[in-house]
Amino acid sequence: MADAPARTELKVTTGPIRGSRKIHLGERANLGRGVAMRAVDLEPTSGEPPVILYDTSGPYTDPAERIDILAGLPELRRDWIRGRGDVEEIDQREVRPEDNGQLGPDRSGGVAPFPSVRKRVVRARSGQNVTQMHYAKRGIITPEMEYVAERENLGRSITSTQTRDGQSFGAAIPDLVTPEFVRDEVSRGRAIIPANINHPETEPMAIGRNFLVKVNANIGNSAVASDVAAEVDKMVWAIRWGADTVMDLSTGRNIHDTREWIIRNSPVPIGTVPIYQALEKVGGVAEELSWEIYRDTLIEQAEQGVDYFTIHAGVRLPYVPMTADRVTGIVSRGGSIMAKWCLAHHRESFLYERFDEICEIMKAYDIAFSLGDGLRPGSIADANDQAQFAELYTLGELTKKAWEHDVQVMIEGPGHVPMHKIKENMDKQLAVCGEAPFYTLGPLTTDIAPGYDHITSGIGAAMIGWFGTAMLCYVTPKEHLGLPDRDDVKVGVVTYKLAAHAADLAKGHPAAKLRDDALSRARFDFRWRDQFNLSLDPDTAEQFHDQTLPAEGAKTAHFCSMCGPKFCSMKISQEVRDFAKANPHPFVPSKGEGPSEAEMAGAEMSNQDIDAGFAQMSKRYRDGGDLYVPAGE
Amino acid sequence: MADAPARTELKVTTGPIRGSRKIHLGERANLGRGVAMRAVDLEPTSGEPPVILYDTSGPYTDPAERIDILAGLPELRRDWIRGRGDVEEIDQREVRPEDNGQLGPDRSGGVAPFPSVRKRVVRARSGQNVTQMHYAKRGIITPEMEYVAERENLGRSITSTQTRDGQSFGAAIPDLVTPEFVRDEVSRGRAIIPANINHPETEPMAIGRNFLVKVNANIGNSAVASDVAAEVDKMVWAIRWGADTVMDLSTGRNIHDTREWIIRNSPVPIGTVPIYQALEKVGGVAEELSWEIYRDTLIEQAEQGVDYFTIHAGVRLPYVPMTADRVTGIVSRGGSIMAKWCLAHHRESFLYERFDEICEIMKAYDIAFSLGDGLRPGSIADANDQAQFAELYTLGELTKKAWEHDVQVMIEGPGHVPMHKIKENMDKQLAVCGEAPFYTLGPLTTDIAPGYDHITSGIGAAMIGWFGTAMLCYVTPKEHLGLPDRDDVKVGVVTYKLAAHAADLAKGHPAAKLRDDALSRARFDFRWRDQFNLSLDPDTAEQFHDQTLPAEGAKTAHFCSMCGPKFCSMKISQEVRDFAKANPHPFVPSKGEGPSEAEMAGAEMSNQDIDAGFAQMSKRYRDGGDLYVPAGE
Repeated sequence: MADAPARTELKVTTGPIRGSRKIHLGERANLGRGVAMRAVDLEPTSGEPPVILYDTSGPYTDPAERIDILAGLPELRRDWIRGRGDVEEIDQREVRPEDNGQLGPDRSGGVAPFPSVRKRVVRARSGQNVTQMHYAKRGIITPEMEYVAERENLGRSITSTQTRDGQSFGAAIPDLVTPEFVRDEVSRGRAIIPANINHPETEPMAIGRNFLVKVNANIGNSAVASDVAAEVDKMVWAIRWGADTVMDLSTGRNIHDTREWIIRNSPVPIGTVPIYQALEKVGGVAEELSWEIYRDTLIEQAEQGVDYFTIHAGVRLPYVPMTADRVTGIVSRGGSIMAKWCLAHHRESFLYERFDEICEIMKAYDIAFSLGDGLRPGSIADANDQAQFAELYTLGELTKKAWEHDVQVMIEGPGHVPMHKIKENMDKQLAVCGEAPFYTLGPLTTDIAPGYDHITSGIGAAMIGWFGTAMLCYVTPKEHLGLPDRDDVKVGVVTYKLAAHAADLAKGHPAAKLRDDALSRARFDFRWRDQFNLSLDPDTAEQFHDQTLPAEGAKTAHFCSMCGPKFCSMKISQEVRDFAKANPHPFVPSKGEGPSEAEMAGAEMSNQDIDAGFAQMSKRYRDGGDLYVPAGE
Repeated sequence: MADAPARTELKVTTGPIRGSRKIHLGERANLGRGVAMRAVDLEPTSGEPPVILYDTSGPYTDPAERIDILAGLPELRRDWIRGRGDVEEIDQREVRPEDNGQLGPDRSGGVAPFPSVRKRVVRARSGQNVTQMHYAKRGIITPEMEYVAERENLGRSITSTQTRDGQSFGAAIPDLVTPEFVRDEVSRGRAIIPANINHPETEPMAIGRNFLVKVNANIGNSAVASDVAAEVDKMVWAIRWGADTVMDLSTGRNIHDTREWIIRNSPVPIGTVPIYQALEKVGGVAEELSWEIYRDTLIEQAEQGVDYFTIHAGVRLPYVPMTADRVTGIVSRGGSIMAKWCLAHHRESFLYERFDEICEIMKAYDIAFSLGDGLRPGSIADANDQAQFAELYTLGELTKKAWEHDVQVMIEGPGHVPMHKIKENMDKQLAVCGEAPFYTLGPLTTDIAPGYDHITSGIGAAMIGWFGTAMLCYVTPKEHLGLPDRDDVKVGVVTYKLAAHAADLAKGHPAAKLRDDALSRARFDFRWRDQFNLSLDPDTAEQFHDQTLPAEGAKTAHFCSMCGPKFCSMKISQEVRDFAKANPHPFVPSKGEGPSEAEMAGAEMSNQDIDAGFAQMSKRYRDGGDLYVPAGE
């Protein structure tokens, strides 16, 4: 087949996120110009400092950066990686036609190869281990860990006055994240920093229960639709809206070149499922997969710079028949490929048997495992069944094995789970996998809403994020129906960002609530611009506002379109507040009257005179005393 | 002002919901042609019976019905109401200019009055009480209760083989809903059937913790935007997608006529907030509100047929200053109006003081209370505070008072609540309000996503629905930003339907999972049409599918656009299933190997030979025995 590669026009979205400016923090550290963040300046009338937001969007939103998709991003980590003295430069494995799927029955078309491919790549010197976990266990704080610490704090010193409020289910989020804390978490395996040494373009980030909950966006073409230009654009678009990592799940043609374009232009870690490409190399026939082809694919992708590999090494032969009575069998692509291989050869999975050899590759490039849940439930009916938990048990066993190699690990989780069965997933994962970060796909809390599965799963994602999941794999509105387009990617990312943030809030993350409070104060004060700018999607917020009240003046109006100028409850309660300020006599019900103490539990009482009771107060204001004065006067 | 009423063209959406046909169940009972439901016929290859779905859409989706918006709907309950012999016909209170806001400073425009207004209305005869609760307490099973029982069962006899699976938090959903069960629930106040005797067009429905979780959609014009034609269309549109009740929150001009158009054409209960209209009558000046004007408004709306009134009688004077230190003060319109009135007059709320008199009106028409949470939190910062719970306590006190009058009651709840504070809301409400149905607005689990608040709140709604909330008030994407249009209404309703359904599933409702399982089987079998038709929004599901694979043949293809024909995991797992069927030797791990018993807890073990262990089985398949045979052979 091997058509001549088509010239693909690559366009991505650049420019600042509305209402935000790029800032860099932590220049004092060994971090070059510092950690990129966003600052939202509020209206001067607010009297409030800028709100600092976590920023995943990379140089694309920085007006000071020149973006050249053909050249790729600057190599932020290059010197850090080489400065450690444990890597060597080698020639890149030669790209073969089958790497781009130019074999097999249904290949056609193509894209231009990335023009600035590095011919020389790095790997660990013989006998060396270049994983962040390896350094961490030896007490070394890497620049990556410093970067993460700065990044996670979001200007957290501001929050020192903030009371901690949340239910953490055993998570231990510190008031301030120090580089030493990051090192300790990575060392214990409770967090990972996906950071392939051949992907020096990444801005380091951590995935772990004691850090902000992260979001992954899947992109990737398939044999049926999509092309590389659209995929690069989707990656840039996904990180603009907050994707912390991106998985390239391409399965079609030009799989190698597509990945090269994506990695060279990605400031976030990239994950893949190498078995997809390996299967392409054998013409799509699962039975023909072999360890040799798989191993070659791992090295090919390792050299390109993939930061984490989904590996379905927990799909063991004996578990496969456990899925036979399921409503939806095996829904993981990787899981079903391995199941088929196991059955066809009546042999144990080569991923399971060769796990130590895989670890040797992982540690030579610092690729993190994302141990795949190949037997995850694909329907409410199949949630939390024998097959699922049998595999989870094996993932726990493999986690410990990977840790013996100092290889970083996270664990993938379901899937489709009704609300009452979600917590069991988290509890079992924590117990079985030694607190390795959990990375779940939703879960979807019902099967009946195709077209809205970003929401059915956003519910489950928020809940499991609260319970302790470290990264949420987004689901788009197209799930089960088609490939997500640009709009779907954005809706999926924003939905998952709000779910992750709801989880951070509920866990009691000391910095999370700052943004809610700033936005709510803006709402109450009718600072519309501030409200838009502090939101997850300022463009949509403003657009929705303008649909009802398009006039520019309405953005400073002290009312909104829901109630109009007369009924505005916010306006009235501003009057209540003014009134109370002018009449500073606190009312607090006594023990005998009004809500009982039991009823009031949970509501914080002011610590002023709690003995002033209903009857007494009532008398005072009925007597026309100075407590309540008609507002008009 | 009083412009000449404009001719408004009223158009609504009619015709069957895609893939569903209208059926009527329970003709044996005293219910006329029976209870309207939807049946989804599955492809013959499935060998499955039709799936029966709850249907809120009324005659609009019944091809056998002739729809005439100018005449209104048929009066399903007319004979039931009159047959009880406890009502009298009276002349309707004359409509006054101020009822339509033709006073005050900013009135203009208008719509035609509803052409078929009933000049004679009904009310309870002197000394009579016509509430469903009153009948229930006397042991009378009304046709309304019979209708509800039939409706809630969804052909539930099918589910007798279904194992109960859920965490109900004390709800007691029966295997089969009998009319006696409905009567008992209404009698205890644990469920309500909103059914104003002047709204005989309603198809009776119940709101209660032991029934399916319901969804309310808000519509209504405001002084700034919207018109009556759009509002009637939105009502019909909302019930098409599953709204169980609709609240008309109009605040602008033509408020009386708009309501008349909506009620006469609504097969679902209609709720209102009478204080909005009362305020219009006094030109928008809260201080000028009086009991007399409010009382007159209640009677005006009672005669029109409003089924439940939101009444903010829990906003007591002493609670108002508790909101002064809040981030967002008082965000309920009704709450802020009453707060202002209380402060202005330094008097206790007339709604609180006149509560017995209000009950007298409610029981003369069978209007249910929706006791408003005027002090609900409007931001994460204000959740579960003193003001909120003080008001809740008062709502509990008022619930008991209403029940002494045999008046039906539900309780409104928040609002903005982070996940970890949601359950406390439910627990307190159950305890304080004697299990009266809870009716919550979301709650929104974060403040930072304007434009996506149907999702931030859908998360909270699903959770609180699981915990026991009986009805979820939808939030649309326009919340905080503008008035919802038709698309927003649909997205809001579908989002809340999926949240309600996720709650039903998690509670272990015995009929809920049938639909998930039927859809998942269709998904696994690549019965695309069945998958669309069983979904909450068949139109969107099909449209999304067609965006990637538009060809008609793709709807019967045994693959989908996510993976393409080769990688399809469902296809591969069908092979696994076929294989397992042909080789029926169960694998079950022994105690010593594979997952431990503790790990497997929750996963259901097959009851076949649980002593067959890994080693033994492994030997068998490694020996090439008959257990695992290459699939190709």
